[in-house]
Amino acid sequence: MSLDDSGYSGLVLEKISSSNAKVGDIISVKRNEEEYVGVLMPRSQVGSDSFHIIIKIETGYNVGIKMHQDSEIQKIKTGKKKRTIMSKEEADQRDLPTASILSTGGTIASKVDYQTGAVNPALSAQDLYDTVPELKNYANVHAKVIMSVLSENIQPKDWTKIAKSVASEIKSGTDGVVIAHGTDTLGSTSAALSFALQDLPIPVVLVGSQRSSDRPSSDAAMNLIGAINLATRANAAEVLVLMHAETGDNYLHAHRGTRVRKLHTSRRDAFQSVNDYPLFRVTEQDIEEIHPPKHRRDKDRKLILKPKFEEKVALVKTHPSIDGSIINHLVESSYRGIVIEGTGLGHTPNRLHSSIKKAIDAGLVVVMSSQCVFGRVNMNVYRSGVELLDIGVVPCEDMLPETTLVKLMWVLANTKNQEAARELLLKPLAGEIDMRSEESEYVSSLGGS
Amino acid sequence: MSLDDSGYSGLVLEKISSSNAKVGDIISVKRNEEEYVGVLMPRSQVGSDSFHIIIKIETGYNVGIKMHQDSEIQKIKTGKKKRTIMSKEEADQRDLPTASILSTGGTIASKVDYQTGAVNPALSAQDLYDTVPELKNYANVHAKVIMSVLSENIQPKDWTKIAKSVASEIKSGTDGVVIAHGTDTLGSTSAALSFALQDLPIPVVLVGSQRSSDRPSSDAAMNLIGAINLATRANAAEVLVLMHAETGDNYLHAHRGTRVRKLHTSRRDAFQSVNDYPLFRVTEQDIEEIHPPKHRRDKDRKLILKPKFEEKVALVKTHPSIDGSIINHLVESSYRGIVIEGTGLGHTPNRLHSSIKKAIDAGLVVVMSSQCVFGRVNMNVYRSGVELLDIGVVPCEDMLPETTLVKLMWVLANTKNQEAARELLLKPLAGEIDMRSEESEYVSSLGGS
Repeated sequence: MSLDDSGYSGLVLEKISSSNAKVGDIISVKRNEEEYVGVLMPRSQVGSDSFHIIIKIETGYNVGIKMHQDSEIQKIKTGKKKRTIMSKEEADQRDLPTASILSTGGTIASKVDYQTGAVNPALSAQDLYDTVPELKNYANVHAKVIMSVLSENIQPKDWTKIAKSVASEIKSGTDGVVIAHGTDTLGSTSAALSFALQDLPIPVVLVGSQRSSDRPSSDAAMNLIGAINLATRANAAEVLVLMHAETGDNYLHAHRGTRVRKLHTSRRDAFQSVNDYPLFRVTEQDIEEIHPPKHRRDKDRKLILKPKFEEKVALVKTHPSIDGSIINHLVESSYRGIVIEGTGLGHTPNRLHSSIKKAIDAGLVVVMSSQCVFGRVNMNVYRSGVELLDIGVVPCEDMLPETTLVKLMWVLANTKNQEAARELLLKPLAGEIDMRSEESEYVSSLGGS
Repeated sequence: MSLDDSGYSGLVLEKISSSNAKVGDIISVKRNEEEYVGVLMPRSQVGSDSFHIIIKIETGYNVGIKMHQDSEIQKIKTGKKKRTIMSKEEADQRDLPTASILSTGGTIASKVDYQTGAVNPALSAQDLYDTVPELKNYANVHAKVIMSVLSENIQPKDWTKIAKSVASEIKSGTDGVVIAHGTDTLGSTSAALSFALQDLPIPVVLVGSQRSSDRPSSDAAMNLIGAINLATRANAAEVLVLMHAETGDNYLHAHRGTRVRKLHTSRRDAFQSVNDYPLFRVTEQDIEEIHPPKHRRDKDRKLILKPKFEEKVALVKTHPSIDGSIINHLVESSYRGIVIEGTGLGHTPNRLHSSIKKAIDAGLVVVMSSQCVFGRVNMNVYRSGVELLDIGVVPCEDMLPETTLVKLMWVLANTKNQEAARELLLKPLAGEIDMRSEESEYVSSLGGS
């Protein structure tokens, strides 16, 4: 890596250059009475300034040191030669399955910006691979960066792009596809791919990390290795999400792409299956099937790609101060569909009913899911539910609200009218809806016996 | 109960009257070859028609039978005399604590409408008491109906009304207040009361049921008895929510009013504490403290009543197709505050940032919570969070989104400007926010070891 690639500029770059130090070398940084010694690290490209230098100190932590005109940098020792990855030809000769890693950004592909302390998506696929050299023991990995965004910014058009990239990897004959993705909207992208990629021949595994790879507690390496293993070896052909299943580094869970939700902001086991069981339990040694996948691996199966999504679909969560104007606003803004995240079994305040009726009369598809997260919508139990059914609201059974939104976007891009949309919405396509899922599929409460 | 109170009308009332049968009598209903025998039940007032009669058959189930001109009703046996409740004077003479039950509606105070099969809030406080006669063994109960609505229709002005009713019961010297409430928005009302009723001398216990009291699997009786026990005997003075803690009838959990959420549409143990432990475990025999309450019972403590809520506050859950127009719409509609339910640690798509900035510049208070449900907002980790903080978004730590909405409504009714609102929002008032809550306060995943 040349100094220009290191990401430094201005004063810092000047000082580094005159010390002849390169990234990877051990250097000392002195000013007045203070001295820091450590390995010179590359600077994240996004948001870098010209005043801070990053070194990895003996404890393993990276620190950012502000440089002044009178700061001194001294090279103490030349760093070890940078580890190089096998060439594609060398790798392909080994008797290992082939895996494709598509990087979209997110923590699993990010570095800390030591100026702001914030994390930016800055790691290339090469870096990703380099961070976890063990990968080459499990598969011949072909890595590609297809975008570099934090997942809160992922939009339906990005799902289209990812789906097309996966299709192209499958066409090239890979044994499994891994998608590195931010965790914030991982569940939505996995749902989108579940609808866009039908009749998959091989597994497509989405993976993220809750702690970035330059932090000691990172889950990135274990999740990534597990994902490569699962994608190339599991006897399944579905879209899966693989993340830590508990706080230790003992095992991971592979969840069905349409049934998974981030349920905690920071824990490594934040992802849980909702109204369904995880499909696989993955350890370093083993892939154990917990619950049967819908489709088995079959490289002869012909992928059907349906990558379009209608963007004019909104999700509205009801709350005690909501009024009908928000629904009216969406109708006036030419939306084509609305997912209502209602309360309990699928209710809204009855003061919304007339706006919802107007929306349906105007041609929108309005569907109901529940903000309870777990359980099934049942609009026949209470009068307010019955009224909404009469108006024409579609009850989305046990589908997650986030999955319902994604499915409605996909359905509206693939149907012509309300009736066809309703029918397709309620038809199980990728394990997203089940007339028979049971109440037992629920997390355990705290403080239990 | 006279026949007029029975809720019947038209043809059915005519037929019942001419048979001389009264509610509670055993009757037979015949037409052609069919005959039904059972106890004549009162008819739910809401949505009743003139064509159906309800009888409780031998199995314990209620059935609705359509009456025709040629249907015949015969009285077979006079029912047992209707159980009467002790007079207030009789009751007060016994050596039992005094409890107030305020009924607001919901399943716990509802009956099935056998015409539509839907459940309506139709039970009076008297009925409620009558349904669970064991209540009189635990306390002298004073029951009042203060409203009769399914909880999806509860609005901020209803919280004001409930808070004032509680204050008036406390003034009258009661030992504990129980509020029967629908489960859909029980967590929002409990949060609202937690802010509106400060320095409580006694416990205020909200209770609901997931199955109505005329169904065999109803949780209504156990929850109500537990609530009376908890309200009159627990050494606490907070707003609590008491519901089943598991699917059996073994024990209940009392959750802090600001920390509880309905996490399942139908299970009896749907309610769980979020980012906190339940405070009490309640069985028929015992009240066990799991986690210390913030305040202990002290009938000399002077209640401070602050029952106002600003209604012009909205909750917006972000999703992959959201755009800034929804925020703009709220600003144009003179909203005063917005709770954003962002992703992960507290992010929104960056295409919303300019609309959020405009909202804050226009004087709105915009706060951030997470749709993950569990965990803490931390906007210093990623660039998008840092940018939102710079714009002036208030990070609401580990507060539930629903509680954050309620608190913002309460704060805006009690402060004059953005800065004062921000300060009050982040100040812990009723256990709703904690700088030290831990990641261990999380539900267990399915499929674990």
